[in-house]
Amino acid sequence: MSTVVQKFGGTSVGDVEKIKKAAAKIKRAKESGSRVVTVVSAMGKSTDALVQLAQDITDSPNKREMDMLLSTGEQVTSSLMVMALKEMGIEAISFTGWQAGIRTEAVHQNARITHIDTERIEEQLNSGKVVIVAGFQGMSEDGEITTLGRGGSDTTAVALAAALKADSCSIYTDVDGVYTCDPRVAKSARKLQSISYDEMLELANLGAGVLHPRAVEFAKNYDVPLIVRSSITDEDGTIVEEEASVEQNLVVRGLAFEGAVTKITVERLPNRYDTMSNVFASLAEAGINVDIIIQQMTGENEMNVSFSIHTQALTEALQVLENKKEVLGYANIRHEDRLAKVSIVGSGMISNPGVAAEMFTVLSDQQIAVKMVSTSEIKVSAVVPEEEMVKGVEALHTAFKLDSRQAAKV
Amino acid sequence: MSTVVQKFGGTSVGDVEKIKKAAAKIKRAKESGSRVVTVVSAMGKSTDALVQLAQDITDSPNKREMDMLLSTGEQVTSSLMVMALKEMGIEAISFTGWQAGIRTEAVHQNARITHIDTERIEEQLNSGKVVIVAGFQGMSEDGEITTLGRGGSDTTAVALAAALKADSCSIYTDVDGVYTCDPRVAKSARKLQSISYDEMLELANLGAGVLHPRAVEFAKNYDVPLIVRSSITDEDGTIVEEEASVEQNLVVRGLAFEGAVTKITVERLPNRYDTMSNVFASLAEAGINVDIIIQQMTGENEMNVSFSIHTQALTEALQVLENKKEVLGYANIRHEDRLAKVSIVGSGMISNPGVAAEMFTVLSDQQIAVKMVSTSEIKVSAVVPEEEMVKGVEALHTAFKLDSRQAAKV
Repeated sequence: MSTVVQKFGGTSVGDVEKIKKAAAKIKRAKESGSRVVTVVSAMGKSTDALVQLAQDITDSPNKREMDMLLSTGEQVTSSLMVMALKEMGIEAISFTGWQAGIRTEAVHQNARITHIDTERIEEQLNSGKVVIVAGFQGMSEDGEITTLGRGGSDTTAVALAAALKADSCSIYTDVDGVYTCDPRVAKSARKLQSISYDEMLELANLGAGVLHPRAVEFAKNYDVPLIVRSSITDEDGTIVEEEASVEQNLVVRGLAFEGAVTKITVERLPNRYDTMSNVFASLAEAGINVDIIIQQMTGENEMNVSFSIHTQALTEALQVLENKKEVLGYANIRHEDRLAKVSIVGSGMISNPGVAAEMFTVLSDQQIAVKMVSTSEIKVSAVVPEEEMVKGVEALHTAFKLDSRQAAKV
Repeated sequence: MSTVVQKFGGTSVGDVEKIKKAAAKIKRAKESGSRVVTVVSAMGKSTDALVQLAQDITDSPNKREMDMLLSTGEQVTSSLMVMALKEMGIEAISFTGWQAGIRTEAVHQNARITHIDTERIEEQLNSGKVVIVAGFQGMSEDGEITTLGRGGSDTTAVALAAALKADSCSIYTDVDGVYTCDPRVAKSARKLQSISYDEMLELANLGAGVLHPRAVEFAKNYDVPLIVRSSITDEDGTIVEEEASVEQNLVVRGLAFEGAVTKITVERLPNRYDTMSNVFASLAEAGINVDIIIQQMTGENEMNVSFSIHTQALTEALQVLENKKEVLGYANIRHEDRLAKVSIVGSGMISNPGVAAEMFTVLSDQQIAVKMVSTSEIKVSAVVPEEEMVKGVEALHTAFKLDSRQAAKV
């Protein structure tokens, strides 16, 4: 008998009607003969409402208490989902994270799952019940309620699929799959039948937003096939798995982009062994996420270091560097905001040299200035002016044959 | 060092401002040098909102899942209360029922506490923290979340006070103490300084509504002094304890009443050993709560049985008796609704014969018909027409010297 894990996100359980719709999908999976474990998020905006309550009380809510507060949201959905299933004649039982045996590090708001004690879930599956698990949460060794941070319910689902050796893990969401590009921007964006973990990981990290990177990484490590599909329609969705079927032999599988990027350049740093580590350790200590880094020698004992950050972190980053000016020994700092990052992703790049060059040609043809570049084995990212972002994305989408009409021709 | 347990009900934590007010009271208790454990209910109408969600899904919600659903309400308050305390500079930590070590029977929606494993609470108290416990909930031996039913948070508080050998248990509520009578009805109702457990128990059972009977019973059994006090003002409140100080030497300490009473009379039942048990077992099986019972022989082998119920249960009660007509062998059934029950309570009755007679005289002087009577050692109840209830209550309140002006004279 096959075992399937499903996950319904916040928008898919946003109200009672949506919970009933999701229950109908769970019922179908159960009636197809599978053992079914379903992970649910908090209802739509209910987490925001809880956060607002905390903010009305304090500007700096305690992390442990935030976990106590927010973990109730998923618990509410889990019990309502069971009621909806029972109303449809399906036997089911809900579990909180701790009841589901999800053990985590003793860290609040961003804990990692250490292991899952599946005994209690197995027992209920064996008795024929659908098991509904409150996502996003677990329990530490010392009996504290923890939460898994952003994308936590995805991670819960994938971790459960791995622990239960499930045949697949379906992520039901408000989009019906993974697209070559955000369909709101590239009108001709096309849904992918399949994509590899690595490609998905790059897209997830690049802010494509369908799946959380940690969940994809977990799925890759435990070889759990992920299916991203719609909670509304019955379409097929996109399978994320080890060897993506060589769909249309495309070198580039998808395209991601994000705005609000700022480039900072620290000029005339001394060329010492510890210069780079000094710069970036200071920023890391302040919790500033640095993306692309470029180091350039400007003389025998001098260099410039440029890096990109989210524009939101600009003020703090400048402050950190200012405070460390004496230690770092630089001459001055420049920054350029209103930038964006555009990335192409595809495993086919490994065996196809010249993809980066082609990307630059496309951007250059559109007269788009490239400010920074970063590459991995399966990705090329270019930082460009934010106002040129959409034009660049559309041109690249067409040039790399991702448009729906082109694909239809293949 | 003294240990105090406090409990704040739903109206006392109904919004963020009220939570902050409650936190200020907790802070004061802590700063007076006590070890403080505080039990909180769900915020105001939040339980109703959760019940509504369940009702939008199903007409017959599963009890286990209702416990999963409703227990989140108190958990939310507990974390917010800790945040409010920390904001005031008081170190605190919240616990769910299971984290607080509250173990219950494996019964849903109406579980009884079996024992409390106080280790985790003691550890936090010893480290100087205020411990906030989510009321109304516990965990069964097999790791299921249970709830304690109506008045559950009161019970949590009293049980914790007993387990921690606390010096007192303060129940903060929207009234400032226990009154001789409902002040909304008897304008001259007076707040009592103290009352005995037994008297409180009779008043609680009679629907005075300030404390749940189960909590009072628990307090009596474990000799926990209960203090009923206002969550808004700083007045003294009423102490419920073993030997009520002989306040004003009154025979009658308080007066309770409730409307919507119906009297049913089953006429000409055969005089058999099992007749009474047959009648009332049938009603109990249907979940119908019977209050006063009167049996009257009407012939050598025939009797009438009258009993009172809540008017809400009338249709079902008549149905049950109709279905059992052949087994029970009665001639016919009469009922009289629009009745009310008026009760006087006081431990002094034990040593003061003639209190019941005095009650009947007062009612008779007001030309109020008495339909049924029931007495215990410390209580006399009379069933009267509902439209005469308030008149009767006011006359009894004055006659038994409970009015505030009279009390001042003593």
